[in-house]
Amino acid sequence: MSGTGVWLIGARGNIATTAIAGARSIAAGETSETGMVTEREPCAALELPATDDLAFGGHELRERPLPEAARTLSENNGVPDRSTLEAVRDDLAAIDDRVERGTALNGGEAVAELADLEPLEADRTVGEVVERLREDYAAFEREQDLDRVVVVNVASTEPIPADLDRYDSLDAVEEAIEDDDRSLPASSLYAYAALVDGRPFANFTPSVGSSFGGLRELAEREGVPHMGNDGKTGESLVKAALAPMFARRNLRVNAWEGHNILGNTDGGVLEHEENEAGKLESKGDILEGILDGSFHNNVRIDHTPPLNDWKTAWDYVHFEGFLDTEMTMQFTWEGSDSALAAPLVLDLARLLAHADANDGTGLQRHLASFFKAPIGVDEHGLSRQFDRLYEYVDRHASIDPAATEPEVTTD
Amino acid sequence: MSGTGVWLIGARGNIATTAIAGARSIAAGETSETGMVTEREPCAALELPATDDLAFGGHELRERPLPEAARTLSENNGVPDRSTLEAVRDDLAAIDDRVERGTALNGGEAVAELADLEPLEADRTVGEVVERLREDYAAFEREQDLDRVVVVNVASTEPIPADLDRYDSLDAVEEAIEDDDRSLPASSLYAYAALVDGRPFANFTPSVGSSFGGLRELAEREGVPHMGNDGKTGESLVKAALAPMFARRNLRVNAWEGHNILGNTDGGVLEHEENEAGKLESKGDILEGILDGSFHNNVRIDHTPPLNDWKTAWDYVHFEGFLDTEMTMQFTWEGSDSALAAPLVLDLARLLAHADANDGTGLQRHLASFFKAPIGVDEHGLSRQFDRLYEYVDRHASIDPAATEPEVTTD
Amino acid sequence: MSGTGVWLIGARGNIATTAIAGARSIAAGETSETGMVTEREPCAALELPATDDLAFGGHELRERPLPEAARTLSENNGVPDRSTLEAVRDDLAAIDDRVERGTALNGGEAVAELADLEPLEADRTVGEVVERLREDYAAFEREQDLDRVVVVNVASTEPIPADLDRYDSLDAVEEAIEDDDRSLPASSLYAYAALVDGRPFANFTPSVGSSFGGLRELAEREGVPHMGNDGKTGESLVKAALAPMFARRNLRVNAWEGHNILGNTDGGVLEHEENEAGKLESKGDILEGILDGSFHNNVRIDHTPPLNDWKTAWDYVHFEGFLDTEMTMQFTWEGSDSALAAPLVLDLARLLAHADANDGTGLQRHLASFFKAPIGVDEHGLSRQFDRLYEYVDRHASIDPAATEPEVTTD
Amino acid sequence: MSGTGVWLIGARGNIATTAIAGARSIAAGETSETGMVTEREPCAALELPATDDLAFGGHELRERPLPEAARTLSENNGVPDRSTLEAVRDDLAAIDDRVERGTALNGGEAVAELADLEPLEADRTVGEVVERLREDYAAFEREQDLDRVVVVNVASTEPIPADLDRYDSLDAVEEAIEDDDRSLPASSLYAYAALVDGRPFANFTPSVGSSFGGLRELAEREGVPHMGNDGKTGESLVKAALAPMFARRNLRVNAWEGHNILGNTDGGVLEHEENEAGKLESKGDILEGILDGSFHNNVRIDHTPPLNDWKTAWDYVHFEGFLDTEMTMQFTWEGSDSALAAPLVLDLARLLAHADANDGTGLQRHLASFFKAPIGVDEHGLSRQFDRLYEYVDRHASIDPAATEPEVTTD
Repeated sequence: MSGTGVWLIGARGNIATTAIAGARSIAAGETSETGMVTEREPCAALELPATDDLAFGGHELRERPLPEAARTLSENNGVPDRSTLEAVRDDLAAIDDRVERGTALNGGEAVAELADLEPLEADRTVGEVVERLREDYAAFEREQDLDRVVVVNVASTEPIPADLDRYDSLDAVEEAIEDDDRSLPASSLYAYAALVDGRPFANFTPSVGSSFGGLRELAEREGVPHMGNDGKTGESLVKAALAPMFARRNLRVNAWEGHNILGNTDGGVLEHEENEAGKLESKGDILEGILDGSFHNNVRIDHTPPLNDWKTAWDYVHFEGFLDTEMTMQFTWEGSDSALAAPLVLDLARLLAHADANDGTGLQRHLASFFKAPIGVDEHGLSRQFDRLYEYVDRHASIDPAATEPEVTTD
Repeated sequence: MSGTGVWLIGARGNIATTAIAGARSIAAGETSETGMVTEREPCAALELPATDDLAFGGHELRERPLPEAARTLSENNGVPDRSTLEAVRDDLAAIDDRVERGTALNGGEAVAELADLEPLEADRTVGEVVERLREDYAAFEREQDLDRVVVVNVASTEPIPADLDRYDSLDAVEEAIEDDDRSLPASSLYAYAALVDGRPFANFTPSVGSSFGGLRELAEREGVPHMGNDGKTGESLVKAALAPMFARRNLRVNAWEGHNILGNTDGGVLEHEENEAGKLESKGDILEGILDGSFHNNVRIDHTPPLNDWKTAWDYVHFEGFLDTEMTMQFTWEGSDSALAAPLVLDLARLLAHADANDGTGLQRHLASFFKAPIGVDEHGLSRQFDRLYEYVDRHASIDPAATEPEVTTD
Repeated sequence: MSGTGVWLIGARGNIATTAIAGARSIAAGETSETGMVTEREPCAALELPATDDLAFGGHELRERPLPEAARTLSENNGVPDRSTLEAVRDDLAAIDDRVERGTALNGGEAVAELADLEPLEADRTVGEVVERLREDYAAFEREQDLDRVVVVNVASTEPIPADLDRYDSLDAVEEAIEDDDRSLPASSLYAYAALVDGRPFANFTPSVGSSFGGLRELAEREGVPHMGNDGKTGESLVKAALAPMFARRNLRVNAWEGHNILGNTDGGVLEHEENEAGKLESKGDILEGILDGSFHNNVRIDHTPPLNDWKTAWDYVHFEGFLDTEMTMQFTWEGSDSALAAPLVLDLARLLAHADANDGTGLQRHLASFFKAPIGVDEHGLSRQFDRLYEYVDRHASIDPAATEPEVTTD
Repeated sequence: MSGTGVWLIGARGNIATTAIAGARSIAAGETSETGMVTEREPCAALELPATDDLAFGGHELRERPLPEAARTLSENNGVPDRSTLEAVRDDLAAIDDRVERGTALNGGEAVAELADLEPLEADRTVGEVVERLREDYAAFEREQDLDRVVVVNVASTEPIPADLDRYDSLDAVEEAIEDDDRSLPASSLYAYAALVDGRPFANFTPSVGSSFGGLRELAEREGVPHMGNDGKTGESLVKAALAPMFARRNLRVNAWEGHNILGNTDGGVLEHEENEAGKLESKGDILEGILDGSFHNNVRIDHTPPLNDWKTAWDYVHFEGFLDTEMTMQFTWEGSDSALAAPLVLDLARLLAHADANDGTGLQRHLASFFKAPIGVDEHGLSRQFDRLYEYVDRHASIDPAATEPEVTTD
């Protein structure tokens, strides 16, 4: 397979910038594929579009071009470093030419503050916005001579819309678009515009995207793969790995308290309460889905600008064991938000392209390990989520002995 | 099934005391079964000997009787608490009458210092020691009118013997016993004496126990189940849950440094370098078995008497992600060593009794999740180890819909 | 000196209960004086009322008697332990007879929810409430035949009143009381009632107490010592010890983020935003008073009921050093809130009694080390605050070589 | 004052490289003075040689020139960053021309492994080595036309010599040098060669340096200021700030456990037990000098190469408070070893130059805050050590109101 395009919603944001810089840096032989799930066994045994060959484009509402976004990231966070930056500068400039103005419909006040380009909806009906998005996707595919375009949403978190139930059927969604009903959020317009023309869609944010009835119906009708929501990159990843340990050992968790401090735009947006709600919901549900009984579960997200793109989480777990003995576990996780998220964006684009090429339709539940709130999946334990991915690989990989992880064997 | 006996090597030590006190406290309705894997779904669906009905006895080299051991634990650590202590005092006194003098052959200097009873080998040949152990097991079974006795080693860690390869065949072991070859360690004599009469054996310590060729052959010949080594209760448990996350996300671990401080006898014994070696080996192998590539891996165990039976581990993980970004994770784990270990001792006794009743023979690899160094098992990821246990349950449980954990399902 | 009474506002709360139980347990020889500043050199060289001899009484709005409060504390937190509880039970019952119904004027909704006794203001003017409080103090002194009564406020945090400037003169305060102006908070009524009759007053809470102009004038007029606000027991204590290190080493703090989780009533009250405001202000000011320049400083306080009376703080300090290198320090502090606060309440009572006996008048700035927001003191570094206390001791102690800490000396 | 030279023992090591790069970067206006104690009030009020004007030279046993040392540091640790590196490259090259071959006498095996230049003692008597060192210092002063040269030892830690008592008098030292007694360590030869010609000396390492009788006598005889040992940069600094808090609050520390992991040469040298001994002694004594009573105090230093020049310390403090309640405090400290040490080297050079210009003689006890094991000083509390420094400033500073820290004042 070749000629795969990755269209990023929020194309000049930190995650998109890092994903593009990383892919081009790998192509230039400047950096390793560390952090990409699809570049390690067993996934590496799949016939995936090469990371080197991915084409990039996207929608955005900020003017600052990609090379400048990358330079700012480098100076403030050290990621990417200066030599990477130099190696990919020209590529970034070329890709920035393919970034189009997007929509921020119902993105909330915080997103509106960030935007310095006029959003499409300023002088268009919803139907016209959707039309324009479809044309942008199509033009990218046509002009770059691509087989396929995968759309990935990495834009800032939107508030959760009030009465989403109204859009539980595809008919209701299409009627709303036609009637210029302006209550659907941007993430769903991007998703609709992709799916309706058979383009795979992944939602890496806690925004609504394609997660409700109407758009899930659309993906089924069009036979196109999609998945979301909310990339699982840091504290939540650790929770999903650790919580099953407590549950299976029958250790009763009384309280699991999390405190996240982060310095980037995402943190700034989340300080707006309406935008934070969705994020907290995704984070909380992981533990609810794994641990027995009831427990105290508070998650704080605080914006701490001096941390720039870095993020530190402190989690405190208070649990009871045998003879009702109270014990504690604590962890801290310190990472670069974009360096954790960006490789997963490339993974998702490659895996959705693979699914699309292999007749995958509708929700791609085997991608649950990538998401905090995997649509249509009740299993929140990380290891089991990975096992579903590995089973997918087993079904699709050429018969390749390397494509399996070690199992329990005798010595 | 009824009438199962649990024979504990190190019967007056912290773990044994806590296991016995806990089981009797559960029987008295004073405490919950929290911390016992077998009292939660899916294992609870197996037909296991009731925790309430377990009979206890054991070997020991210290004079201090069980009620005093329990009182000391309670005063110094708060576990068990005073009301539990009062509820089980009479039971402990009765059980202490069934504690016999044992052997400490090749237990090292540290163990010798702890002992205030003369070990059996002081005036016996190895053959006579084994004979005596077998008689003790049999007398317990006979006098308590039991169907079955499971032997579990929870004694202090022994040094690793020098040339264990010599005992790679059962013939070599039996010849050694006959010839009064005094180089086998106590843990292996206890194991031999159990297995040779068809009694299941579990080794909860890093000592050698039944883990080498000769005794594995014996277990096969006698059709008796056994398993070990080294109960996975704290830092190692967390490592086994966390390390697969780094591996599967293709995050490259550069250094994983662990520091354990603990105050109990175990800590004291481990300060003797010869005894510490085995412990460190068990701990180190978990990461080696899960993570890709090479990395720096140091584990420290320091004796800190003011902590009494409590144990704190600090682990520092230095890893690289996308664009070779260096990031860190740290955790601390604070627990009561005995409260973490004791319920697993009961779990192992129950599960080995079940295996024995269901024609289980030789190594019980589905019990790998209980051990730091599971004999004959290469899989060190905790979740997959649990999956093997759950598959065992699936094969044996009555057709009971409750006996399964939730799987990935559509919503 | 003998015959000193300690009158506690919030006499059946956790801190008061622990202080009383501790003092009586010390009197019974059941526990040590660990944690009391005044029982160690150099303060121990002062002629202070003996801890054993302190008499207790207080105001309260909850019915639950002291012995029950102590038993609940013991069961939920292990502090005091059961043997202490048994040793002091009768003393607690006797002291509980001297607890009187108090006022909760402007205590906020949270405090109102806790109260199950009708507050004095329900059927009294403000003037009548003050009259009653004065009578209660006097009756305690008379009936217990005491030389002196010190009043210490350890009640729940009140909201900060809106326009406190109005009460900047004593005249304005007295006029307000006379006119039944119901806008002063309970903590200030307790303070007024104490000071007006020459009784020393300490405010261990972030409530207003005696910290404003009118009451400071009263204390000066009456020649009576007083001090506050807000006992410095945990995270803030550590901040006051650590922050000068960063400042003096010219390490530039960019962000100091604190997260507190606590399970007791105090945590519950602080969940009400109006009550939390005062607390956060006290906590934030310590760093502002020590560190150079501007920095990000967020303090979170979250109520986590499973922790009961225990409190864990996590602080994350992000700082820059030479060559603008970014580095971090983190700490966690896990303590029993009442066990940390209670000995300081006894210390303050003893030290205020000493000041009163030695003609101390008005603010007692040498007590700054006890408080998060020491009234009239700009110095927030812990070590210098202690130096002021030691200078006080030097001025008052009998010439006793033990009454000094070691100084820099040659070897 | 102008024309001050700083002669660094270990001139191409990490600390020296960072100190020189930093000073030149400040001179170039590329970086701030953050981290330098002498560039902040009150010390800034002293008439010190300007950081910009300091001249550098030194002794070394490794061939790798300074620009290469700086580039390696930058690439592995990010400190100094690339733009600093570019700004100071020419300066470093020029300074490297003034680096002379030194001695490693009794430096231990670890130091010998690092050296790739033949040490002076290979073909010289001790007397000749000393002669050569004196000439090197003098030539530097002469050729750079300096008023004064301060010698600072930042070389790798030496083993502690066996019977140092022999050198308790200056006579014994001079006799040993004359007789080619080869048992004195290199650090003391460097110190002797400096002091005997009236050059100030600071020992930033735990090696012996000038800390024993004979050399202290020499400094007194020559009227030259000197100080050491062992720069207090990280974990020990925090201990010195925190421990007084526990002591003064009468909180009884039962155990204070420290674990240090570091990746640089220093860590490698400390893995050799003989070299580690001195380091551990310095670290342990801080707590012994501050806390009451006896407590468990273990300090581990582990070499963890992937950390490069970075260092992480984890400290666990287990303490008892009121009612004998057991509580804990933990901290982690993550810093760049050289970025923490380098500014203090510049501070010491400036302050010793100041002392020398102002008739300072012998031990400079007001510099205790810079050292883990300050010679001749019993006070280990950080705040009091700083107060001694500030008193020195008060005595010497021009009457300048800015030269004082804020004191306790009324509001």
